[in-house]
Amino acid sequence: MAESPMRGVFPILVTPFDNSSRIDEESLRKLIDFNVDSGVHGLGVALGSEVFKLSEAERVKVTRIVVDQVNGRVPVVINTGAAGTDLAVEYSVTAEENGANALMVMPPSFGPVPIAAVLEYFKSVSDVVDIPIFIQDTDASPVPAALARRIAEESENVRYIKVESLPTPAKVAAASAEAGDALTIFGGAGGSYFIEEMRRGSQGTMPFCTQPEEFVQVWDLFRSGDENRARSVFESRILPLNRISAQSPGAHYHVHKEILRQRGIIGTAVVRGPAAPLDDLTRQELQRIIDELYS
Amino acid sequence: MAESPMRGVFPILVTPFDNSSRIDEESLRKLIDFNVDSGVHGLGVALGSEVFKLSEAERVKVTRIVVDQVNGRVPVVINTGAAGTDLAVEYSVTAEENGANALMVMPPSFGPVPIAAVLEYFKSVSDVVDIPIFIQDTDASPVPAALARRIAEESENVRYIKVESLPTPAKVAAASAEAGDALTIFGGAGGSYFIEEMRRGSQGTMPFCTQPEEFVQVWDLFRSGDENRARSVFESRILPLNRISAQSPGAHYHVHKEILRQRGIIGTAVVRGPAAPLDDLTRQELQRIIDELYS
Amino acid sequence: MAESPMRGVFPILVTPFDNSSRIDEESLRKLIDFNVDSGVHGLGVALGSEVFKLSEAERVKVTRIVVDQVNGRVPVVINTGAAGTDLAVEYSVTAEENGANALMVMPPSFGPVPIAAVLEYFKSVSDVVDIPIFIQDTDASPVPAALARRIAEESENVRYIKVESLPTPAKVAAASAEAGDALTIFGGAGGSYFIEEMRRGSQGTMPFCTQPEEFVQVWDLFRSGDENRARSVFESRILPLNRISAQSPGAHYHVHKEILRQRGIIGTAVVRGPAAPLDDLTRQELQRIIDELYS
Amino acid sequence: MAESPMRGVFPILVTPFDNSSRIDEESLRKLIDFNVDSGVHGLGVALGSEVFKLSEAERVKVTRIVVDQVNGRVPVVINTGAAGTDLAVEYSVTAEENGANALMVMPPSFGPVPIAAVLEYFKSVSDVVDIPIFIQDTDASPVPAALARRIAEESENVRYIKVESLPTPAKVAAASAEAGDALTIFGGAGGSYFIEEMRRGSQGTMPFCTQPEEFVQVWDLFRSGDENRARSVFESRILPLNRISAQSPGAHYHVHKEILRQRGIIGTAVVRGPAAPLDDLTRQELQRIIDELYS
Repeated sequence: MAESPMRGVFPILVTPFDNSSRIDEESLRKLIDFNVDSGVHGLGVALGSEVFKLSEAERVKVTRIVVDQVNGRVPVVINTGAAGTDLAVEYSVTAEENGANALMVMPPSFGPVPIAAVLEYFKSVSDVVDIPIFIQDTDASPVPAALARRIAEESENVRYIKVESLPTPAKVAAASAEAGDALTIFGGAGGSYFIEEMRRGSQGTMPFCTQPEEFVQVWDLFRSGDENRARSVFESRILPLNRISAQSPGAHYHVHKEILRQRGIIGTAVVRGPAAPLDDLTRQELQRIIDELYS
Repeated sequence: MAESPMRGVFPILVTPFDNSSRIDEESLRKLIDFNVDSGVHGLGVALGSEVFKLSEAERVKVTRIVVDQVNGRVPVVINTGAAGTDLAVEYSVTAEENGANALMVMPPSFGPVPIAAVLEYFKSVSDVVDIPIFIQDTDASPVPAALARRIAEESENVRYIKVESLPTPAKVAAASAEAGDALTIFGGAGGSYFIEEMRRGSQGTMPFCTQPEEFVQVWDLFRSGDENRARSVFESRILPLNRISAQSPGAHYHVHKEILRQRGIIGTAVVRGPAAPLDDLTRQELQRIIDELYS
Repeated sequence: MAESPMRGVFPILVTPFDNSSRIDEESLRKLIDFNVDSGVHGLGVALGSEVFKLSEAERVKVTRIVVDQVNGRVPVVINTGAAGTDLAVEYSVTAEENGANALMVMPPSFGPVPIAAVLEYFKSVSDVVDIPIFIQDTDASPVPAALARRIAEESENVRYIKVESLPTPAKVAAASAEAGDALTIFGGAGGSYFIEEMRRGSQGTMPFCTQPEEFVQVWDLFRSGDENRARSVFESRILPLNRISAQSPGAHYHVHKEILRQRGIIGTAVVRGPAAPLDDLTRQELQRIIDELYS
Repeated sequence: MAESPMRGVFPILVTPFDNSSRIDEESLRKLIDFNVDSGVHGLGVALGSEVFKLSEAERVKVTRIVVDQVNGRVPVVINTGAAGTDLAVEYSVTAEENGANALMVMPPSFGPVPIAAVLEYFKSVSDVVDIPIFIQDTDASPVPAALARRIAEESENVRYIKVESLPTPAKVAAASAEAGDALTIFGGAGGSYFIEEMRRGSQGTMPFCTQPEEFVQVWDLFRSGDENRARSVFESRILPLNRISAQSPGAHYHVHKEILRQRGIIGTAVVRGPAAPLDDLTRQELQRIIDELYS
């Protein structure tokens, strides 16, 4: 590994849609610039991008727009996991061809999958690309630390893990203890335990793309040793959004798009189905937070 | 509903692959004829077809081959469920355009999805097609009878449910009691409780495509009132394969392709990953059953 | 229902143990007084009391101590759910005989239990007591709002539901909409969404017993219409403990006992197994919070 | 290990109840003799005994009756798992004092339990007894083979594992490969894959207590090398009951008690709640099987 590993704040971009549910390229480009200009260290396209609701053509389109607009300023991580190995391989090769700097791959989660098949799935993807791969550990398909280690040992390009299954601090600690020499660890779950994760060995996080300034600020303060100010920024500015994002299933999609819309960065807050809209009360609670944070 | 509802034995076709994991069209056509010639009442492309491991182009290709080869002899049901509503709509419209006679749609299962979003997902699909839709009730995304009724009430084209989450006899009984007037019920889960399901109100089943003669025979015997002979055929010929199919996760894919290969119907027993091959012992057990049944 | 329903802050008492893992009666009595003196509106013995780790004799002992020490100052709710109906009936009768003012019962969660059996379980308990019953909705055994309504309709004494499965705000809203006329709703999950739950119709909460003053303060401020100050108290004093309690599985038991120990209310922070101790880092993080809050 | 390990057919006794839901001692004694006289190699009290619906006094009573009636003719295994370590320790010591020859313990399954806590739980039990312990691997609390090995390495008396989580053949194979030197493996899940399990290294099974003659016969035939006749007995006599037992949640309790009642071995078919009675159709299907097998 000649190059130094990626680390820092890698927000996951939402996919902006217009009112007809088509990808809104202009908004996506603005969103990318907003994040890069805020000093993020990388950008990702993943579950928070509703990637599993995109057609294959749309996946390619999003990848190309992101790579083009980022234009090498920061590394781009593209989620290419799939229910089938051949599909994951195909999505991965395509992403690399379109300029992705790294891939993020969750294990297949459709039905019970034997360990041997999970190992082979990651190896198949690793063998056809020349860019690093993040193992994605999610609630739907958690990756225990011992399995992460085995995957990394057998798959040359698997060099990162993004820990996203709750509770993340315990998971990051376990990954660090069992696989920290083989894998660089990123935290996840919307950054809800960003600071606790860093204390336990994470080298970065993949939060939503709504508050890149704040996340970079926390990162910088923490790295400079000023934990108190890091906590203060986190608690006053990031935590309120984390909490409202978690208060009903799927709320986070609406919450973040609505904020970006009100901040003038994307054109609509349209979330693709299956999605229940925020109820009135949650909408009011969100508005109060937005007003407090951004007006 | 002018036309009478579909009913009977609707095997789910495996997708034959060649040794490079490409779709083997010739084998697929032979497999279709084998099933239609055995007297099945319909054919399906669904989970047993590894549909979730196919690219979008491959989904279209399989649909076209099946519709072309069946050539109107029996109705064709195509699985078009997806993690996103827009995708399910797109897959459904495409399937109908390519000649599907019915669709089968499982609820979105990626993460927790509110009931309201499930209802809207089915309504969105129903509103853009003119062919009947099966609700697919699976272990990954079970559909309680009361929810099935609500879906049917709100979605005009949803007129069937395939009950596949175990234990199916209890589920078929519940669906029949709560939604039997709104939905025609098919059994599933490889036909393991085919007769018990019929006793509780199912009007058909969607088994594997390996034993169409036997399933049609059981169906005919049962409908003619000869339950004893129906049971005898079921227990002596179908049950052994059901049991070996269930003895390790994913074994069923290998079991059925291997039988079809040995019977000369498809060219290889290749199963796409993620899949662990059968171990030697299971392979021997399978061979003994194949020898007993087919040599 | 002549009497007015219970409502307000009903902390769940921890069960203090000595260093030999025996119940520490003196600490328990101090803990009760600490809570009653802080103005709580009721007290409970439930999962947070490690009730499922107590022998039957210990359950009786705890109930008697609590009833005796409370001495009628506030109502006492005792958790009497069990894996078997006969056991739940026996525990419930015993709790009532020993002076409980109300019961809290979770549905049986051992293996899949048919709805009809859940209904009969609650009815069996309801039929043998003369005190009101809370349905307990937990992650292990969630109770959808429609089921809660059916239970209440068939079981005369079931008049409350404690909503504890996450995310609670959405669950409280659903319970309120579907069963609000039949059931008084309490929130749960350590009070993490206390204010959001009240906005959606909860009439009380069952938090840990570590911060009764703060919870009563938030309750009073909210009821008096001063949501801003309610939020301020909640965010500055309650939220930090909620977050650290959730950062590894089972951490909450240790966190709350350690605080109570340091505040001089109970003698040890012993948690019964199965329990992994807090790791050093979490212990430091906890200490920092304790110091900020209580020194 | 001076003595040779236990192996063979160890049926799990049902707990017979009278019409008032009290333990029917006379029936239990008859049931024990029926099993011992049929040549079983051991007897157990476990989940199939509805042990989780028994009060602590009833657990003791059942243990004493079983030990007394068996009177040393075969070893007696008592299930002493619990939600809390102290309880499991107490139940285990009590069972040993009352004459149990071995214990069976499932890991705590109430809520997420860290691995370290599971290990300590088993060690705590192992340290206070002098009889061997079975790890119980169930659907509610599965024990992967690697964890079973770690438990055995740390807990001297843990010398057996009963594999009960489906699909058992794959699980037995994995346990055999990873922990076969440290643990003697028994199969479970009602014996549904008894022969397949033996082929993969199981040294015994813990089926229901309804068909001891047939299970012993299969065991003897298999051990003597006559697999064909073993299969024939299994398929014609055991399999039909296995299938009907699995066709609705909890049906197995009713099925086995009803058979024992009709065979004149126990007095009633009363199953303790939570339990939904068999519906009429299942009752008819069961009667037909009983008539075929036993009239």
